[in-house]
Parts: sequence; C-alpha cells; structure tokens
Amino acid sequence: MTEKTSIQVKENIFSANDQIALENRDYLDSLQVFSINIMASPGAGKTSVIIQTLSRIAAVLRVGVIEGDTAPVTIDADKISAAAQIPTTQINTGGDCHLDAVMLRQGMSALPMDQLDLIMVENVGNLVCPAAFKLGTHKNILIASIPEGDDKPYKYPAMYQSVDVLILNKMDLLPYVDFNLPYFLEGVRILNPNLIHFPVSSKTGEGFQAWTDWLLSEVRHP
Amino acid sequence: MTEKTSIQVKENIFSANDQIALENRDYLDSLQVFSINIMASPGAGKTSVIIQTLSRIAAVLRVGVIEGDTAPVTIDADKISAAAQIPTTQINTGGDCHLDAVMLRQGMSALPMDQLDLIMVENVGNLVCPAAFKLGTHKNILIASIPEGDDKPYKYPAMYQSVDVLILNKMDLLPYVDFNLPYFLEGVRILNPNLIHFPVSSKTGEGFQAWTDWLLSEVRHP
Repeated sequence: MTEKTSIQVKENIFSANDQIALENRDYLDSLQVFSINIMASPGAGKTSVIIQTLSRIAAVLRVGVIEGDTAPVTIDADKISAAAQIPTTQINTGGDCHLDAVMLRQGMSALPMDQLDLIMVENVGNLVCPAAFKLGTHKNILIASIPEGDDKPYKYPAMYQSVDVLILNKMDLLPYVDFNLPYFLEGVRILNPNLIHFPVSSKTGEGFQAWTDWLLSEVRHP
Repeated sequence: MTEKTSIQVKENIFSANDQIALENRDYLDSLQVFSINIMASPGAGKTSVIIQTLSRIAAVLRVGVIEGDTAPVTIDADKISAAAQIPTTQINTGGDCHLDAVMLRQGMSALPMDQLDLIMVENVGNLVCPAAFKLGTHKNILIASIPEGDDKPYKYPAMYQSVDVLILNKMDLLPYVDFNLPYFLEGVRILNPNLIHFPVSSKTGEGFQAWTDWLLSEVRHP
C-alpha cells in the first residue's frame, strides 16, 4: 500500500465521521439534550469524576451515560449503575483507540433520549486518538490528573487544543508528587488560552461545586 | 468506504509492519544489540524508569535511547540527556498514537548502533495502539502505575497480553490511593500467566535492583 492510499483512506474516514457527528448534534438539539464528551489518559479518573458529578446533579437533571471501552468489560458501567440509578449503556470499540460518531449514534439508540436533559460520554482512555474524532457532542472535556505529570500539555498538544474544559483531578495527591502547577498551566495557556479549568479531587469532593455549577449552567442555557 | 476495504487496509499495514519488524530484529541480532520496547499510559513514568535504570546500568553497559513522541517536543530526550551521557534520539510520530517498525529503523539509523549493547525504546504514551505494532525489539515492557487504578488489566487486555515484563511503578503512592493489589495481579495472571513483574518506585528507587538484575542478565545471556 502506498502512502498516498493511506492518506486518502484517512481523509475519507474523517470526512464520513464529521458528517455523522453533525447529524448527532442535530438529533441532540432536536431533543434539547445537552452532551459532553469526556476524554483522558487511562486512569485519570473519568469514571470517578462522572460518579462524583452524578451525586451532585442527578437530583435536578435527567442524565444518561455512554461508556466507551476497548474490551467487552462493564467495569465502568457497573460502577456507575451501582452509584446512581440512571440509564447507562456500554460501547465496545473492539480494540479501537477512540469512540467515533457512529458509535455515539449507536450508544444514543440504547438510551431513552427523549427523557433526558444531559448525556455524559466517557471516551476510551487515550490522549491521542479521541482528539481526532468528533462525536457531535456540545462540549469536549479533558480530565488530567496530578500523578500523570506536569508535562502533558506539551506532549499531547492536539488533545489540549481540542477541548473546551479541563478538569484537573487528584488534587489530593499534590503533596506526594513532583508536579509544577504553574508550568502545567502555562502549557495549557499556550495551547488553548481560553480553556476553562477546574481543579478537583474525586476522592475528597474538592472543587466539584464549581465544575457542576458550570455544567448545570450550560445545560440550562446552552 | 466499505468496512471490507477498511479491514483490508489494516491487514496490509500490519503485514508490512511485521516484515520490517523482522528485519529490525535481524539487524539488532547481527550487531548483538539487545533491545526493549517500553510501553505505558501517559504519565506512568516511562522516562523516570529509564533514568533510574540508566543510573544503575550505564556504567556497565553501552546504552542508547530512542524516544517516541506524538509532537515535536524534546522534553523526555532532554531529561535523559541531562541525567546520563548516552546517545539519545527522538522520533516524532506526527500525531500517530504509536511507534512502528519503520520509525524504529529510522531511530536506530541515528544511533551509533555498532558501539551499543542495549537500546531502550520509549513508545508513545498509550495503552491501546502500541500493542498492535511490533517493532522487532527483543522484549516488550509495560509500565503500569499505582494511581492509574487496579482495573487496567481488565480494561486494556490486548496490551497486558502483548508484553513480556510488567513494571508496576509509583509504589510510593500506594498509601494514598485506593489500589487493590491482589485484584490487579489477578487480572494480570488471567491475561498473561507467565508475565514477570517488578514493583518499583522511580521516586525512591525501591525495586530497581531486581529489575536491573533481570535486564542485565537478559542483555548478557539473551
């Protein structure tokens, strides 16, 4: 296979995906369902952030969750179901390193969309691939975590440039880890000057009030 | 593009890569250079483990390092150069989520291969893509870390099945994180029963003696 063929195939894939992402957005808007796409490195705490968020908003919003995993395991979906009585569905990407717009469409078809105000989509744990595939969601959220290290914006710039909100998780571990917060935030500022960011700890609940206030405001006044 | 075309393209890519991986291995063997491919999630501590390892082996082995990154940043290569006077080269994957065999060939061409005993290859931070692309190295090493969580073997089985050695890093954070070590190790055992594993802390140096003893033994008696 020549390099040219490979590039052509990639362009076709991205273009087809973007078209379906637009259709997803139209569908969500027609139902007045707000949607967020949550991306992060493996182990940054996507599921824990979702559970902490649900504990604060599930009483006032009707929420559904779509879980993306590369393997047919329901660990995250089970955790969420155990923590909150809300509609949850699982997408197995079959080894692929990201969700795409078709997978989101499939996930939405498994949820009672006309009875929801918000869907939270947990993408595959990965700082590279998910940034390249639009889903059609309203906001892209990146969760970084203290033990990952302060150099991540510099090393994964496409991801940091592609998101609307940054949640910096595991703030409770800051005393035990060499993490230079000003250096990290300077990297973020260079790549994405207007990025909103919320420092939080899923373990202690620190910072979740500000994040959920923002999320509630967006859902109510998109 | 039909699904069939997509599968065909993937097969062609894997097959071409495997062929070059075999050529890489032949080249390494002809020079009697041992090689390890280090994979991990972003922030698991690949660079820190390499630096700790170099501090213990650079006096007795001639080592070169190949750094893979998705962006044209030399943060990791600079850290390694600052820590040890050894040949180091950087590969920018141009956004791709993994190294491949052609990139390793390029990396090796930038090192004085006939003057080395060992090359350490730091793959892109990712628990999905690198597992699918053989490089031709002698051993595949996975670094997991305590704050990533104890469920990672269950959620990224292809990676855990594809490696020869597991380094479990950041053991110093165990007191501060909910990490069930028996649950983690049971997941590893199910997927890869003979996987050798070394618990370490790059911060304290704990566990590095056992890991470097193993590595030295492999280099000397491959």
